[in-house]
Amino acid sequence: MGNGYTMQQLHTLKDFYTKQLLKDTVPFWFPRSYDREYGGFLLMRDACGTLIDDDKAVWIQGRATWLLATLYNTIAPEMEWLEGAGLGYDFLDRYCFDTDGRMFFHVTRKGEPLRKRRYFFSETFAVIAMAAYAKATGSEAVAEKARHLFGKCIEYATIPGILPSKFTGTRPAKGIGIPMIMINTAQQLRETIGDDRCDSYIDSWIQEIERDFVKDDIRCVMEQVAPDGSIIDHVDGRTLNPGHAMEGAWFILHEASRRNNDQRLTALGCRMLDYMWDRGWDPVHGGILYFRDVHDKPVQEYWQDMKFWWPHNEAIIAMLLAYLMTGDPKYAERHALLHDYAYSHFHDPHHGEWFGYLHRDGSIAQTAKGNLYKGPFHLPRQEWYCMQLLNAHLQNRQDK
Amino acid sequence: MGNGYTMQQLHTLKDFYTKQLLKDTVPFWFPRSYDREYGGFLLMRDACGTLIDDDKAVWIQGRATWLLATLYNTIAPEMEWLEGAGLGYDFLDRYCFDTDGRMFFHVTRKGEPLRKRRYFFSETFAVIAMAAYAKATGSEAVAEKARHLFGKCIEYATIPGILPSKFTGTRPAKGIGIPMIMINTAQQLRETIGDDRCDSYIDSWIQEIERDFVKDDIRCVMEQVAPDGSIIDHVDGRTLNPGHAMEGAWFILHEASRRNNDQRLTALGCRMLDYMWDRGWDPVHGGILYFRDVHDKPVQEYWQDMKFWWPHNEAIIAMLLAYLMTGDPKYAERHALLHDYAYSHFHDPHHGEWFGYLHRDGSIAQTAKGNLYKGPFHLPRQEWYCMQLLNAHLQNRQDK
Repeated sequence: MGNGYTMQQLHTLKDFYTKQLLKDTVPFWFPRSYDREYGGFLLMRDACGTLIDDDKAVWIQGRATWLLATLYNTIAPEMEWLEGAGLGYDFLDRYCFDTDGRMFFHVTRKGEPLRKRRYFFSETFAVIAMAAYAKATGSEAVAEKARHLFGKCIEYATIPGILPSKFTGTRPAKGIGIPMIMINTAQQLRETIGDDRCDSYIDSWIQEIERDFVKDDIRCVMEQVAPDGSIIDHVDGRTLNPGHAMEGAWFILHEASRRNNDQRLTALGCRMLDYMWDRGWDPVHGGILYFRDVHDKPVQEYWQDMKFWWPHNEAIIAMLLAYLMTGDPKYAERHALLHDYAYSHFHDPHHGEWFGYLHRDGSIAQTAKGNLYKGPFHLPRQEWYCMQLLNAHLQNRQDK
Repeated sequence: MGNGYTMQQLHTLKDFYTKQLLKDTVPFWFPRSYDREYGGFLLMRDACGTLIDDDKAVWIQGRATWLLATLYNTIAPEMEWLEGAGLGYDFLDRYCFDTDGRMFFHVTRKGEPLRKRRYFFSETFAVIAMAAYAKATGSEAVAEKARHLFGKCIEYATIPGILPSKFTGTRPAKGIGIPMIMINTAQQLRETIGDDRCDSYIDSWIQEIERDFVKDDIRCVMEQVAPDGSIIDHVDGRTLNPGHAMEGAWFILHEASRRNNDQRLTALGCRMLDYMWDRGWDPVHGGILYFRDVHDKPVQEYWQDMKFWWPHNEAIIAMLLAYLMTGDPKYAERHALLHDYAYSHFHDPHHGEWFGYLHRDGSIAQTAKGNLYKGPFHLPRQEWYCMQLLNAHLQNRQDK
């Protein structure tokens, strides 16, 4: 391990992710979650897969649609996956939009709206769902809907005050979440149906992250800053989300990879990873701590030291990508630490899929596999991305 | 213990709560938190009392004002307490109201608004702060402000749609928190400056709790129900908050006590306590679990099994009150379990006061003593209430 992964180890990893994705994770959810009566998916499930609520979370409906269409587009043209993506697309299109063009957050099984939020994450996940489904079906009409909704997201992300705010204007702040999700949405759009706007927007969002959120002097990626990029020295402003920042790092590494391993972007992604590994990895119990204070003060959130599934998915992708792009063995070491921690603590060997929420010591805090925020996304995306990445890497090596 | 507390044990408890309140809890906060420059209090503090943020949470500014005025009114006319209550009152009055008469939730040290919420808890805590301060100063003008604001709270609590909602009208729901906070607010108002509206309103809120939230058939107090009192069989509707329901139980027992130990109300409070003790007490590690699902399914909140300080404060009051009112030794047993768990796990023997947030196993999850939600309220109120209650009980016994 001191020299990184051997080719044999990379083959083993590729086989492992492939098997987990197709024999464990995806079968936990599908086809049993297809709602052939009302459309969309029934995804709020307990450890063994029993439905605990038939409500539908719009984020997750979009993400599941994206996943199924993406499996169809990239792994095999299974009609079952296409059928599922169609159920998801129709439900989103028919029930999840309000009359003002914005989307709901939470709807009933039949699609009646329960809650709409100030954020536009429902919209960004619908963009990638629609784009992937447009590619799967070849429908230009669906592609146009995806591009139109992406245009709305650009407006929400860039026009100050267009969406209502939780806060007054006394202490303006901005989060890294917006440029991050917009980078990933644009990347997905570009890689499925193509969109001329994407490259230059991605450039500008990466520049914003580098300029305003990445603090080289203190080796940190901020989660929230003032509009000019300065640190807001109050509890919220000091709160870091290491797993989220590592997710942002791999979006940037992915962009670097697409741009012939652009060195500046590769270095930026690796710096972000290095900084937040140091702040996020729990040296006592292993795993990634959810929140940290930039000055090690107490954070507001009392559950700050819990281990959530998704930061581990994102960090696993980030470390593998950094390793394969740079060959630096430290990324292989960190990838192995994360992979071993995650598959031994989060994975449920009895029923498949992962638990979502562990106490700091690694014991399970909550057994739901699906709820308002967790569904078939981060875990299958990680397994799918790593599988694709290793396939390409190993294929490339073989060709040489 | 099988026969309940002895008189000697009750004396010991009285001395303990008195000492904790006056030698440990209150001195942790005051006078160092008085903000003589901008008014109000600086309450966001780490374990050792270091300030971690100079922002001001409006709930907590009101609660601290109530506490200081109440200590002045009921324990001793200390000028330092009166001065502190005045700092709090002035800050609330000057900076914490929006132009529409509603209050903010979170302001800067200087009183600039940061956030306003859809709920009116800032207002209810300001009512009890103003009422107690009006009594301390004898000011009829302040008393009038308290009564006026209480009138606004009655409107917010009873006129549907007067405040914006987080949810659409698809699945209407109501929480036990509104009738509970209104009962306590009315009780405080009545006991400080008096208000003719209180008795009948308290009756109607208790009736609402009994009719719509207390489910004798399944031995449960619901946290949220449909407007007609039926259980909403979705994740949110099934979620119970045992510590909160036990707080509601003591508000009702307190009312029973004031009404010459009204038997119907005493029985109602005791049933609520019994039901939620069975659902909330953690048989594995001790302490009160934060959330439970009415059907033992997973709850949405991943931190659902944490132990928070305040449910323990409220349950300690509830069990002691139930014991002294009924003489039933089971309440003394539960009080002793709670008291021992709480003072051995939450109390900080080095710096005083309590930690707020423990993992399920009792280890400390977050070290702040004060933040946006925690400040000088539940703990000192518990110590003050139990001290007053035991004083009165022992005095009464002595007189017989």
